[in-house]
Order: sequence, then C-alpha cells, then structure tokens
Amino acid sequence: MSTCDDRSEPRVEQSASTASTASTADTEPYRETDPAPAVGRATPLLDSRERVSGRLVFVGDVRLAGMLRGRFLRSPHAHARIVSIDVSRCRALPGVHAVITGKDTARRYGVLPVGQDETAIAIDRVRFVGQEVAAVAAVDDETAERALRAIAVEYEVLPAYLDAQHALDGCGPPIHDDRPRNIEKEYHHVFGDPDEGFRRAEVVVEDTFYHPRVTHAALEPHGTVARYDGGGRFTLWTSTQAPRHVQRGVATALDVAESSVRVIPCAVGGGFGGKSETFPHDVAAALLARITGRPVQFIATREEVFLLHRGRPESHIRMRVGLRADGRIAAVECETIQDGGAFCSYGVVTILYSGALLAAIYDVRDLRFDGYRVVTNKPPCGPMRGHGTIGARHAFEVVLDRAAEALGLDPVTVRERNLLEPGSRTVNDLRVTSYGYPRCLATVVEASRFRDKYRRLPRGRGVGIGSSHYVSGASNAILRGRFPHTTVALRAERDGSVVLFTGAVEIGQGSDTAQAIIVARTLGIAPEQVRVVSGDTALTPVDLGSYASRVTFMAGNAALEAAERLATKLRARVARHLDVPADELELRGERVRSKRDRAVSVSFLEALRLTAEEEGCLQTQGAYWPPPEARGGRFPGAGVGPGVSYSYAAQVAEVEVDEETGEVRVLDVWAAHDCGRALNPLTVRGQIEGSVWMGLAQALTEEQLFNERGQCLNPSLLEYKVPTTLDLPRLHTFIVESDDPEGPFGAKEVGEGSLAAILPAIASAVYDAVGVWINDLPITPEKVLAALAARADAKDGTARAHGASTLRRPPVPHPRVRTTSPEEPDRTPARS
Amino acid sequence: MSTCDDRSEPRVEQSASTASTASTADTEPYRETDPAPAVGRATPLLDSRERVSGRLVFVGDVRLAGMLRGRFLRSPHAHARIVSIDVSRCRALPGVHAVITGKDTARRYGVLPVGQDETAIAIDRVRFVGQEVAAVAAVDDETAERALRAIAVEYEVLPAYLDAQHALDGCGPPIHDDRPRNIEKEYHHVFGDPDEGFRRAEVVVEDTFYHPRVTHAALEPHGTVARYDGGGRFTLWTSTQAPRHVQRGVATALDVAESSVRVIPCAVGGGFGGKSETFPHDVAAALLARITGRPVQFIATREEVFLLHRGRPESHIRMRVGLRADGRIAAVECETIQDGGAFCSYGVVTILYSGALLAAIYDVRDLRFDGYRVVTNKPPCGPMRGHGTIGARHAFEVVLDRAAEALGLDPVTVRERNLLEPGSRTVNDLRVTSYGYPRCLATVVEASRFRDKYRRLPRGRGVGIGSSHYVSGASNAILRGRFPHTTVALRAERDGSVVLFTGAVEIGQGSDTAQAIIVARTLGIAPEQVRVVSGDTALTPVDLGSYASRVTFMAGNAALEAAERLATKLRARVARHLDVPADELELRGERVRSKRDRAVSVSFLEALRLTAEEEGCLQTQGAYWPPPEARGGRFPGAGVGPGVSYSYAAQVAEVEVDEETGEVRVLDVWAAHDCGRALNPLTVRGQIEGSVWMGLAQALTEEQLFNERGQCLNPSLLEYKVPTTLDLPRLHTFIVESDDPEGPFGAKEVGEGSLAAILPAIASAVYDAVGVWINDLPITPEKVLAALAARADAKDGTARAHGASTLRRPPVPHPRVRTTSPEEPDRTPARS
Repeated sequence: MSTCDDRSEPRVEQSASTASTASTADTEPYRETDPAPAVGRATPLLDSRERVSGRLVFVGDVRLAGMLRGRFLRSPHAHARIVSIDVSRCRALPGVHAVITGKDTARRYGVLPVGQDETAIAIDRVRFVGQEVAAVAAVDDETAERALRAIAVEYEVLPAYLDAQHALDGCGPPIHDDRPRNIEKEYHHVFGDPDEGFRRAEVVVEDTFYHPRVTHAALEPHGTVARYDGGGRFTLWTSTQAPRHVQRGVATALDVAESSVRVIPCAVGGGFGGKSETFPHDVAAALLARITGRPVQFIATREEVFLLHRGRPESHIRMRVGLRADGRIAAVECETIQDGGAFCSYGVVTILYSGALLAAIYDVRDLRFDGYRVVTNKPPCGPMRGHGTIGARHAFEVVLDRAAEALGLDPVTVRERNLLEPGSRTVNDLRVTSYGYPRCLATVVEASRFRDKYRRLPRGRGVGIGSSHYVSGASNAILRGRFPHTTVALRAERDGSVVLFTGAVEIGQGSDTAQAIIVARTLGIAPEQVRVVSGDTALTPVDLGSYASRVTFMAGNAALEAAERLATKLRARVARHLDVPADELELRGERVRSKRDRAVSVSFLEALRLTAEEEGCLQTQGAYWPPPEARGGRFPGAGVGPGVSYSYAAQVAEVEVDEETGEVRVLDVWAAHDCGRALNPLTVRGQIEGSVWMGLAQALTEEQLFNERGQCLNPSLLEYKVPTTLDLPRLHTFIVESDDPEGPFGAKEVGEGSLAAILPAIASAVYDAVGVWINDLPITPEKVLAALAARADAKDGTARAHGASTLRRPPVPHPRVRTTSPEEPDRTPARS
Repeated sequence: MSTCDDRSEPRVEQSASTASTASTADTEPYRETDPAPAVGRATPLLDSRERVSGRLVFVGDVRLAGMLRGRFLRSPHAHARIVSIDVSRCRALPGVHAVITGKDTARRYGVLPVGQDETAIAIDRVRFVGQEVAAVAAVDDETAERALRAIAVEYEVLPAYLDAQHALDGCGPPIHDDRPRNIEKEYHHVFGDPDEGFRRAEVVVEDTFYHPRVTHAALEPHGTVARYDGGGRFTLWTSTQAPRHVQRGVATALDVAESSVRVIPCAVGGGFGGKSETFPHDVAAALLARITGRPVQFIATREEVFLLHRGRPESHIRMRVGLRADGRIAAVECETIQDGGAFCSYGVVTILYSGALLAAIYDVRDLRFDGYRVVTNKPPCGPMRGHGTIGARHAFEVVLDRAAEALGLDPVTVRERNLLEPGSRTVNDLRVTSYGYPRCLATVVEASRFRDKYRRLPRGRGVGIGSSHYVSGASNAILRGRFPHTTVALRAERDGSVVLFTGAVEIGQGSDTAQAIIVARTLGIAPEQVRVVSGDTALTPVDLGSYASRVTFMAGNAALEAAERLATKLRARVARHLDVPADELELRGERVRSKRDRAVSVSFLEALRLTAEEEGCLQTQGAYWPPPEARGGRFPGAGVGPGVSYSYAAQVAEVEVDEETGEVRVLDVWAAHDCGRALNPLTVRGQIEGSVWMGLAQALTEEQLFNERGQCLNPSLLEYKVPTTLDLPRLHTFIVESDDPEGPFGAKEVGEGSLAAILPAIASAVYDAVGVWINDLPITPEKVLAALAARADAKDGTARAHGASTLRRPPVPHPRVRTTSPEEPDRTPARS
C-alpha cells in the first residue's frame, strides 16, 4: 500500500475538498490557538520512528531460547483419501523433535459458527493441492525439510472439482459429506418487485462478468511462534489482523479455555484481509510447542502464502439493470457464483456482501440477488479488501453505463439521477446515515474535466467513471451474544501519562494513532501523550479485529466514550477545586479551563494529580455496540443490514490503449472518498491510494492460474503480477467529509471503499478509448486485441463488443429456492 | 537468598505454628471443599517456570538493534578537584560514539527531597574513589575500555575524610559546601523521661558497638539499557526495585516530564535494597542514547557494584539500658554515628529508623536517641535489608541480656517481662496493631529447648536469643502530597481472564504472586487465573517501589480493594440475573453462588460474560494510603511513626566456639516470624531463611575494608566473604500468624524483620559458650581469640570481657541539640 508525504509526492494533490476539512473543523471553538487540535491534522503514525528504523518486531524477528522451526508436509493432490502415513523414519532423524499428523488435531475450528470445518492438518482426506498433511518441529529449516521428505504418505486419488460449475454439476462424491451439492451457502434475496420494475423499464441491459482469483500479496508472509507456558497455557506471537479469532480458534482446536491462549500480535507487514483468522500454523505451532516443550516458529514461504490464500474467489456474475425513461433505475438483478475453495473461512460473508450492498450507492427500489458460494478442490478463499463487493460493483457500474448509453445519458448524469437521501433507508433497510457520494462524484468529475473529455478524447484515449462504497464494520458480530463489538479502556496517571488499552490491532493502517487522536482531542492533549497498548489478548479488552473497515468507527467510538468519561471525571474534580460548575469547564490546550474565563484553569497534569490524590489512578472504559436498527432492520436474520455508516467513493480513470499491442496504460486517476471526517488526513490519503493501486492491479494484471490437477501455476511474486510503483498512474486524491452522525467526530470507513470503483472506471475508460467492453478480468493486452478483432469482424462494432467478455463457465440457472422463515438466521431471503 | 521446598530440604521443619496457619484459615467458610483457597496455601511463584528455565529477561539479556556499550571513567581519588578533562583523543577513536563529562549532566537528582545532591558524573570535584568522572558509548566493551584510557584528567587532590569521626572533626574544607560540619542529618529524640528512668533503675548497663560497612552482594550486577524514542521520550530497561524512583530521577536529571521516561523493570537478580534508586548509569545511558541516537547498555562489573554500594553504613553505637528490680525496662539511651559516604541516598531514613524503632518490640516508656548521619569520602551508603535497624537492635538485645544477667534474670524472662500490648501505642506513638512477638518467643524457646540448654551446655557450646521487627512499609512517602502509596488496577474479560496492573515490581520476592493470591481469594478463582502486569511505568499505576517491606501490605491492600470492588460489581450483575439479593451471593470455587443454596449459581466466566454484555470489560481499582494516625501520631514531623503494622521475630542460635582457633560455628537456628498471616507460606519461609542467612553473614564474616586512600580493598565476591550454602546452620523456621487487622487478609511484612535478630542471638550464644561478648562485628576468630586472651589476663573474666569490642573510633559526645518546633518536618525531637 502506498502512502505519501504531501511535500514530496507529485502524484498526490491537496484538493479543494481537503481544504473543506479545515473549514468544518473551524466551527470548533478555540481551534486556531489550540496547541493540540488532533482531529483533522496530518499526524504521523505514533510508531513511525520504529517503522522507518527497522525496530518493529515482526513474527520472523521473534527469537526465543531453544526455539524450533516448524514445517508442513502438503498434499500434492487436489482431492484424495489418505490411505496411510508413515512418520517413523522422519521421527528417527536427528534434530527432529516432533511429528504430528491429522490424528493429533482432531477438533475442528473455523472463523464462522456455520463453518467449523477446518483442522490444522488433514484428517483422512485432502481437499486441495497444498493442504497440510503432517507437520514437523526440528532444530532448523534444513532438518525440517529433510524430515518432511522422510514421511511416506499413500493416497487414493479422488475426482477433483476445480471450478464452481463442475462442483455444482457434482458428478462424484461431494467434497464435504455434509454439503452434498458442494454449496457452502446460497442467498436468494428479493426486495421490491424487480419483475414489475423491469417491465416498466425503458431499457434493460444484461451482461456477464468474470473475476479470477486474486490474492492479497502482502509483503510479509504469514507466520507464528507458539510457546507452551505449562499448566495448559500457551502464548502465541503471530502476524494477525484478528488476535481474538486466533485465540478462539487455537483454544477450540486444542480444547482449552480461551483465556489459556494468549495471542500477542506482532507487527503486521500487510494484511488486507489475508490474516483475519486462525491458520493451520497457529494450531500446529501450539501443539508442537506442547509436545516438545520448546517454542516453535512457522514462517510461510511465498509459495505457501499462495496456498493459504484466503483471497478473493473466482466469480461469475450475471448483472441486469433496467432504466426508466427518466434515467432512474427501474430494477436490478444479479446472480453470482463464487468458487470458494475447499473450506468455508468467511465465504458466507463474501457471498452475502455481494448482494446486500447492491442498493446502497444509488436509489434502487426493486432488487433481486441470487448468490451461490461453492466448494471446490482449491485453496480456501476468504476476506480481501473490499470483501464481497468488488465483482458486483464492477458489473453494476458497467451495466449501468451501458444502459445509460442506450438511453442517451452520459455516465455522470445517470448517476446524478439516482442519488439516495442522507437519513434514508435503502430498499433492504440499510441506514444511510451520511452520504458524501454526490460530492465525491462532483469533485472527481470537475477535477478530471470528465465532461470535457468523455467521448471527446482522441482515439486510443478515454475516460471512465466508477463508484463504490463499504461498511464501517459489520453490524452483526460473527459470534452470537449481546457483547459489544469492542471495548476500549483508558488509564491516566499522575505523571501525566494516558494509556489506552484497545483490542483493535495496529496492522500498519494507523489504528493506534487514530484512537490516540480521538482520545487526545477529547482530553485536550496531544496524540503523542497517549500511549497505546493494542491487540495483546492478555492485556487488552476484546475487539473483534482489524477487518471490515471497522476499527476507526467502532473502536474509535469506544475510545471516544472512554475519553469522554475520563473528561467528565476530571471536570468534576477540577470543578470542586476551582469552585466552578463542572459544565462550565472544558479540556483544551493541555488544561482544564473555564469556558467563560480561560484564566480560570489548571493544567491537565494538575487535574490528574488532584484526582490521583483521591482515587489513585483514573480508569474509564467505553464500548461500542452497533445500534439494533443497523442489525438487519426490517429483515432480521435475512443476512441484510451488514454494516453501519457506509463510506462512498467516486473515481475517474483516464487511460491510453495501444491498439497495436492491446496494452492499457492508466494515465491519471481522480479518486474522491467520503470518509465522514478525516481524523488523520495522512492515513486517509494513504488508504485511498492503496485501494486504488490494489484495484488497478486487479483490473489489469493480477490473477491466479491453476492447471488441470489443481496446482497453482504462479505462486510467486515473480509470476503473479503485482504492479510496481512504476506502473502507477498519477493519482489525485480528494477527501470528502460528510460528518457521519454516528461516527467518532464524524468519521467512518476509508480502508476498503475506494477499491472497487477503479475497476469499472478503467473498463469504462477502455470503452471510451477504443469502443470495446472487457468484462473478463484482468484486462490483458490479449483480451483487448481479441475484442478489437471481434469488433472489426462484426457489422455493428459496438453492439457485439461486450461479447469480448468470454466467460469461461457461464452461470447456469438454478431453481430459485425461496423460504419464508424470517427467524432462521443464516439461511435465506425475506421480503418486505 | 535461600528458598526451600518443604519436601526436599531437611534443614527446614514444618512447625507447630505453621500448622496453626491452617486452623486460622479454617474459620473461613467452605475452605475444605474450595478448589481455590489461595490464601495460606503454598503457591509456587506464578513465573517459576520462567525462573528455573532461564527465560526471565535480565537487563544483561536485553539486546536492541545498534546497541552500544557504555562505560564509566572513575575517580582514583577520594577527594579531589577536577582541574581539567581532555576527551579529544578519546572522541577521535574509531568505534567511540560519544563521550560525556560532568558538564553534560548539570541537573542534580536524588531519592530524597532533602538530598538532591547527585549528578550522574562528577562536576568539578570528586568525592570518593570510584565516582563517575566521564562516560563513553562505544561499539563494544573493549573499545569502551580503550576509550576510557584515552581520557586525560588532571586532579588537585584534597584532604579526604575517611571515617565519621574524622569528618566530624572537620580539619579541612567540608565535602559539600552546604554541609559545613559534614553532617547529613542529626536526630535528637527524647520520649518520656529517660534521666528519671535511669535513676529508678536497679541496674544500668552501657556498652559500645561497631558495625562495619556491608553490602547487598546481589548476584546480578546493576545495569541499564536506555533508548531514545525521539520527541523527548526515553525508554529504560533496568534492574531496579523502584521504577518510579528511576523515572523521576532520570526525568529530573534530563529535565523532561516524568511521563516522557518509561522505565521497564527487567527481572531482578537480587536487590535487597541495593537497587532502590536512580543510578549514574541510568542517567548516563539515557543521555548517551539521546546523543548517539542508539540504545546504550551499561552493565556494572562486580567491582563497580561495590563502588555503587548503597549498602549499610559503618556505625558506632553506644547503648545504655536500665532495668528496674522487677525486670521491667526503666530507660533506654542510644547514640549512633553512621558514616554514610559521599552522598545522601536514603541516609536520612537510615539514621531515623535507627532510633525510631527502638521502642517497638518491648515496652519502653523512657527513651533517648541521638543519631548522626555523617558525610565522608567513601561510596555512598543507602538502604539495605533491615534498613536502619540492625545495629541498634544488635546493641539493644545484647545490653538487655547483660542487664538481665546483672539482675539474675535469664534472657527469656527479661523479654517476657517487657511485652507490649496489641492495640497499644509505643512511647513514640507507633501503633502496635498486631503483636505476635510473645508467640514467636515462646515458639523458638520451646523448639530449641532454650531453657534446658542456656548455661547448661558443655564448654564451647552455647545458645543465645535475639529479637527483631520491621515496618510493613513506610507510612510517610518520600515525596510529599496526599497521593496514595500505591494503586492497583484490575480488568476482567469475558474470556475469563483477570489482569492485575500493579506498579509494585517483582524482584524475586514473589510480590506478583502475593497480589494474585489476594485477588484470586477475593474472586474465588485460582491465582494462576490472574495475569499480573507489574512495574512498567507506562502500563501500571504508581507504586513507590519494592522496598521497606511495603509491597504485600500496601499493594496487597490496594489489590484487595480493587478485587472487592470487582466482586461487588459481579455480585450486583449476577443478583439481577439470578433474582437473588446481591448480599446473599459469594464468590467461591470459580462460581458466583448463593450462600444459602450453593446450587443457585453461575460460573465466574458466565458472570464475566453477563457483565461484559452490559459494560464491555470490567475495570476496578484500589489504592492504599497509610492511615493518618500512622504518619507520626502525636509527633508529626518529628520523624517518628515510620511505618505501619510491625512484624516481629524471635530467634535462638546454638553455636560451637573453637577456643583454639577462635572459630564460631552456628549449628542450629530456630527462627519464628510473625508475618500477620502467611498469604503464601512458601515465600514467607524463603524470606525468613534469607534474612537469617544474610544476618548470619553480617555477624560472622562480611565487612568492607578500605585503605588510607579510601580505596575499597575487597571489591569482589572472592574477597568479600559471603557465606555459601555450606556455611549455613540447620535452620528451623516457624511462621507465626497474628492476623493484623489492617493487613490484607491479616498479612504484614516478612522480608526484613527476621534479619537483625540473628546478630545478637549469635553474640549471646558465643557468650554462653565461652563467656566473652564480641561487640565488634564481624565476630572473627581473631577477635574471639583476643577476647579470650583478655579475659584470661583479667582477674574478673567476665567483667572485662566486653572490652573485646574494640571500637575503632569511639563516638564523641556532641552538644545535644534540642528544638521544640513540632511543625519542622525533618529535623528534630518532640517530647510528649
């Protein structure tokens, strides 16, 4: 993910909307003279010195006395029965301390209650090439590798399902006995009356789209160090976005109490969703540590990172959009089939999000969604930045553009005609608490001079527009219960220190700093005065994890509540000391002072001392529960209401297409993001840039390839084509502030919502440049050339252009299952 | 310090009084069936696995990237003016990153407000052999040593004061300009009417005593690692008993806010008082880290540990005790002169404690104390286990024995006739809240069969008795203010974990475990379920430090309060859940259950979950302030009322004296200690044993020797004779429980109170064996032989025997200063 320094990076512009940040903040009293405004100021990460000087400790840096290295033996088959495993030769090797196989890891775990389908090591049967078959702990890597070669495994190969259609056809035994149709999950949602909607439409456009598997490609590979502490207790140092998920997963797999597993998250060298759950190495390391009595470290190779995967599923999408004569959306229909790989992971959420967010940018009143999450014999897919929304959004935006064109509307106008209202609810009852989308759209249209360029650029050059959005955290926690999604504890001491204990884990996204800013602003001190202890499950309150763009919003709200309670206590104590009413006091400029007469004040330090004399230290806490009405609204249990306070993004891409080579070059991207309020413009900008870059990669270069035996063909950063900084366009970022009423100081998500927009923007720009639609990602030169050739062959060039999207497997119609039980939580549709 | 396992150590007996521990505890309901009684059960230290497997991280184990090694150049002169320092050659050496001298460390610091007299490096003048003159930071030790040799210092040697009498005589310029008579502090206390008391006495015995300098001899040398974190912030990893003192000292010396200095205490390999303050290496490491931008590590050599010293002062004591005809003490008079070395350290407290505790074992109504703390040109003295009480107690017990003998009373009887009353106050207003001394005395007298042996053993063999005591923490904090002495914070989580945040630092004495026991007992869970975070100034509330035997009592009381508040919250929540009154609920056996019907209950985990659903996590805190009446009582500011809740000890030693060689061999020691209540009998026993061993060392072998130039002659563990385990007697320990009304679960101090008793017990046993009193410590064979020879020469053997105590410098009478201002805090006497 690229981050930038405004002073040195020419690709990033300070924008008009960023200037409006300041004007919003100006309404705060005393802002100009305040030494610590905190909110809205570009604040370097609190640990930036450690980051740039190599002092962060990654899991690969952890060294414990007597530590062993762990390695996995992996399946060479996509689907096979394990007939026998002989580890006797392996066990006898000098330097080998322990060998474990499936029989040592009997208890299943998983991230979702519905998907407790994983074990650290395969039991009896392997389900993808690369699945763990045995693990060793040895004195060093070389010995461990030698040990793996000494394990003899006999397989009986079974027929493998290597894509979703094949798995649905189901010609052999199912991959999991309890999923006879190889379907992990299907959703069939109908809101409004889409059939009637399409009947009233002036134009209807339908097309199919294909997204290949893509991966997070974080620079740091996965890894873990486990130590057995005796007495049934374990400590794990691991690279994770979700320490509490790892804690629960390992505790479940090992059959110990959750509090017996301490997870200490190390610095994370990139997660992007790919480190959001318990991995086989977490469980195996703990198990091997208990067996050997020595710490065990697993660090995945790059190839293993591809086998762990948990990235985006291969997806087939059929999208149909109808427009009324006035340009308003008449109806939307979407069918998605996702190849989720061999295990569930977060797959149920992926397929849910693909449908549930369809109606949350534009005002859609009649909607149908049919989604299938299919099990196949490939590495398991999982959550990845923009989780679930990328394919659906790409398809929607492209089909919308084409329908608009058929109606004679340009891409900007059709979007302007379909805006939502802030404070409204979508047809599937999502709450639009704030809505900066119109300003995002206007900002990028104006900055890019889109109207001057669209259809007017020289041949081979084009502009396109795309929009996207994302939740600020999921409103339904993965585990049932009335627990808050996050709790933040604060402690202030008479030496002036303020310590923030948060379970939300810093993964490089700046969450520690964001929470410190919120607390600092509330207490009138500088963010640097707040010391953040984050993520360690033994020291910090439960937070679900750094995923689903939830941290700033949820942990931020909890931090705000904790800080406000601390401020209240300080005001009460100082009020007695100064003999003024507590509500006359405010915390500003490192002082507790009277709003009427600023000279009537004590320093923040003195306020802490006064309180300490009576109470010792000062402790408060805050917690965040999503409001009940965000947890499904009128459709409880139907899988709707996935989030709270949605972010919005609009982007314009300008591309150059070489019609001789088929190469697409993105020249400029204008990206505007409504993050509610930018607590730290520096990290907000970094998130927008990172999202654009990652989406661009997916649009143009990235895909995982498999052969007919289910082997990943490009499991390395040499072959899996992640763009470099040299491949980046000029990037113009714009922060749009909509001041969300439920966000901490108005903030909402920024980490994921800007990713999807760039895909349709590029696709649309390619169409503007050379007149062909490429619906089959990535948009490679070969596909561009093929589409151009197809168009040249055709009589009516543009009409058949979208035929260039060659779906490898067209989705087949399935009987539409519809149930009517709204109580049944994770199953099926409801209808208003 | 020796610790023992009851099952394997033949030297330690389970005693009758230990059995009474159980009977006291039996009054607790449900004790027998409770799976987690916690209090009173022998509990291995929570970190014992780490301790025995080498996993504790000592400061010498700390390795940071780019870390430099720091070394000091030290003064070769006891007293000299620094004419010039030339560091240019040193600075130019390859591998040398920085050199600092006195001009770089301008701000003075010190542990006491009255003694802010230290700088990390001498400025203009050196005051003892070994004082820091310059410091270097270099890539390794060898380079650093070479660098030190390249520093050229020109001194002008001044006359040095090498003992207290010489310093008081004051023939040259004083050591500190602001202390013209070389007196750091003098106390002149009179309580009752000692002159009248002596007039009414039937017998009066007076004698003089000499104690040499002794040192802590902790196995781990002092050390620190400092890192500059930028922005004026520092992190120190250091071996310390008092992180908050180091924080304050370093912040003062560097002129930054206290919260800018984070002190992370490493594992401590023995402290015994010797690591209770800021040391020059703490300040120099921080300074060098800031200059070089790299972490800097100082680890003292063994010789440097002797130069840092902070051990016991050389002391001259004159003790006079009068007994009435009925054996009751008529009056006590004590004069003490202590050679405190070149700087104050805790010296003011040392000399205060020497007098203030004289009346707290026996009922003394008329008392005079005159104490002088003198500055000399030797390494500074400081606090050491039994701080301030050892010399006075040795002298008192011996003179009491001799007066009793003159009256025809045996040592047991005279003690039995002078008992205090529990709940009473001493003449100087110390509060005797609990008083297990009579049981201690009876226990050791009975166990040792003292009455059968005293005066009845064969020649060359003898028994002696000694008594001692100590405070459970100082009642007046070193820094003024109404702050609590300690605060403990608790957090409980829905995964069942309970985290205790305490500033009290674990130094191997088991304080983490003791606090966990208190919390566990209160919450009805096992101590292992409590995770303790201790000492880190950035994470834990302020606690003054692990000294003055304060932690179990003070932090224990704070932990108890925090746990009780947590229990109250849980009871309230569960009461609503079960629909029973909260006061009907109790926390036992990992459940919150009805006292009426144990079946009505929820598990502790479930109770946490219920609370978490409403509040997130559960946080409480407790704090401890000594009661105002313990802070000086009727004599505020007169330096009395030094502590709260005194411990008591009685010991019997049986010795064998070889009249040909003069060698004294201690055969058996019976040691009983009133610790209020033994929270953890395992560590209580360890503390008693360690104290006896350390006192025995001081009685028989240890002393620091200096030559006429002020150089320490035996600064190594080869030459400074610490006894080994082979030199230990059979040790019979007895835990006596008096259930202190103010201690947590009745507990009070155990770490220091048993040290002093062994000195008079051995001296008295030597007298019983061979008829001579040796008042001049250590009791070496030479001194025994000289005393035996002197007695043989004399007509009346015993009468002149105590002449064997050859005072090197007899104390001279000083004009008795007496002021009458009771407000003036640190000065002088008051009279009732």
